[in-house]
Amino acid sequence: MSRTTVSYDDVVYEFHPDLEGVYTAESGESLTIETIDSLNGEVQRESQVIDEVPEEVNAATGPIEIAGSEPGDVLKVEIEAVRVSEDRGRVTTIPGFGLLHEYDDIDAPRTRITPVADGSLTFDGIEVPVAPVIGTIGVAPAADSYSTLVPHDHGGNLDTTDITGGNTLYFPVFQEGAMLAMGDSKAAMADGEMCGTGAEISTDIDVTVEVLSDPAVSLERPLVETDTTWKTLASAESLQEACELANRDMMRLLAREHDLDPTDAHMLSSLVGGLEISQVVDPLKTVRNAVGKEYLSNPF
Amino acid sequence: MSRTTVSYDDVVYEFHPDLEGVYTAESGESLTIETIDSLNGEVQRESQVIDEVPEEVNAATGPIEIAGSEPGDVLKVEIEAVRVSEDRGRVTTIPGFGLLHEYDDIDAPRTRITPVADGSLTFDGIEVPVAPVIGTIGVAPAADSYSTLVPHDHGGNLDTTDITGGNTLYFPVFQEGAMLAMGDSKAAMADGEMCGTGAEISTDIDVTVEVLSDPAVSLERPLVETDTTWKTLASAESLQEACELANRDMMRLLAREHDLDPTDAHMLSSLVGGLEISQVVDPLKTVRNAVGKEYLSNPF
Repeated sequence: MSRTTVSYDDVVYEFHPDLEGVYTAESGESLTIETIDSLNGEVQRESQVIDEVPEEVNAATGPIEIAGSEPGDVLKVEIEAVRVSEDRGRVTTIPGFGLLHEYDDIDAPRTRITPVADGSLTFDGIEVPVAPVIGTIGVAPAADSYSTLVPHDHGGNLDTTDITGGNTLYFPVFQEGAMLAMGDSKAAMADGEMCGTGAEISTDIDVTVEVLSDPAVSLERPLVETDTTWKTLASAESLQEACELANRDMMRLLAREHDLDPTDAHMLSSLVGGLEISQVVDPLKTVRNAVGKEYLSNPF
Repeated sequence: MSRTTVSYDDVVYEFHPDLEGVYTAESGESLTIETIDSLNGEVQRESQVIDEVPEEVNAATGPIEIAGSEPGDVLKVEIEAVRVSEDRGRVTTIPGFGLLHEYDDIDAPRTRITPVADGSLTFDGIEVPVAPVIGTIGVAPAADSYSTLVPHDHGGNLDTTDITGGNTLYFPVFQEGAMLAMGDSKAAMADGEMCGTGAEISTDIDVTVEVLSDPAVSLERPLVETDTTWKTLASAESLQEACELANRDMMRLLAREHDLDPTDAHMLSSLVGGLEISQVVDPLKTVRNAVGKEYLSNPF
């Protein structure tokens, strides 16, 4: 099957239940999805600063309807590659945004342009390897609507370093056709995304989408698979609440795999799990819980 | 210099400013420190459950006075090895304690004994490699007193998987003699320590202690060095506040290394740092911020 390219001529700024697809992909189809940077290409120089979080931010290319997907299914998104498609990223501070926005010594707004060449970006003379991350990726939610600035059970602004080439994401399908959209890539980003951005950049993303009908386990929230681990992903008002959700989701998988009651699954998670911070700056915070594949086989 | 063994005949349950040493070590001296498990050896069978967090918990062997250390110095503790010294660990749930203690399906109190043999522990038939962690390690604090259940700027109940053989800890010295004490080891523990314990176990810990007088940078909180990274360590009421402190501490080191103002250091940390969860269950929560040695040389 030839690979279709979905351009960022069609983007959404809100994940809502009634999204309509701009392209219909078959289950098993491979696509290349072009994304523009989270600031819509409007920041090209350090003199261009962001006075407030824009109303339209984190443009997500799509939505892509996945033929045959129904509520209760799982949408598997294999991320084959994320390639930066321009020669610079931008890191910003924005007034009222970011982990340290209440500290007087943090100057906002500020923009730093990070030139990209030969697999590295440069921040103030410091070379950092390009390690692309998809910041925003999700599906049409069950009932409420979420701006692309917000992460929740449908995905959205997860800002998770594991969402990158070589890894696979699994989403609950809430609406017919799933309605996948993605954007807000970074050339590099730390776990935490402390200042509120990574090095925001446009990218081309190769994915293969697949519908898992009648999955052996249902999902309430996204799950990510790396070479060696499974990670539950949860977003909530506080990091502590996100930890609770990410741990409960993982306990359910561990309990099923090892035939444990919830308490023993909780105790096992305290030995073989691992809570990880995705981001601490968005309106909801995102946490992962990672378990090695030696303790957890493919749940689907 | 021959290696002295400090036994757990002498332990403290509180880090306070007026600790008195049970042994005086020279700067550069190597010691073996014996620790008993966090529950003082009182739980040997699964029928022995813990109805409430004991008043005396996390016995910390010591304190060890380090000759010549003065307030403002840095105490370097090279952890050469942590060896389990008994044939079982114990994982517990305790009413009112742990990430999920408010959930009805979590049964507390419960005890699971994890037999240890040949480098593995066993939880309900599941083999887990022994990867020892020192749960509680610290020095005499500046002013207030902290039970060994609490982590803070002096160290204490940090419950951090990086505090293990092969890594090096750096503490601010607040009191003459520093007064190092440690205990509360685990045979294995997940980042997060979700159920409130790892596999609690007695250990023998080989360390070399060294006073860094007039250090090039002062410390406010502990710092850990691994083969490849430097990690600031901060504990606070919430995970979010701990993230703020761990990021500010790291920004100070990055700013000094690269001659950056606080805002640029913050932005750089958002590219090359990485917030990590140590534990989410103690009275204060603990977070790390990790930066690779390619971006940060030895600050001392």
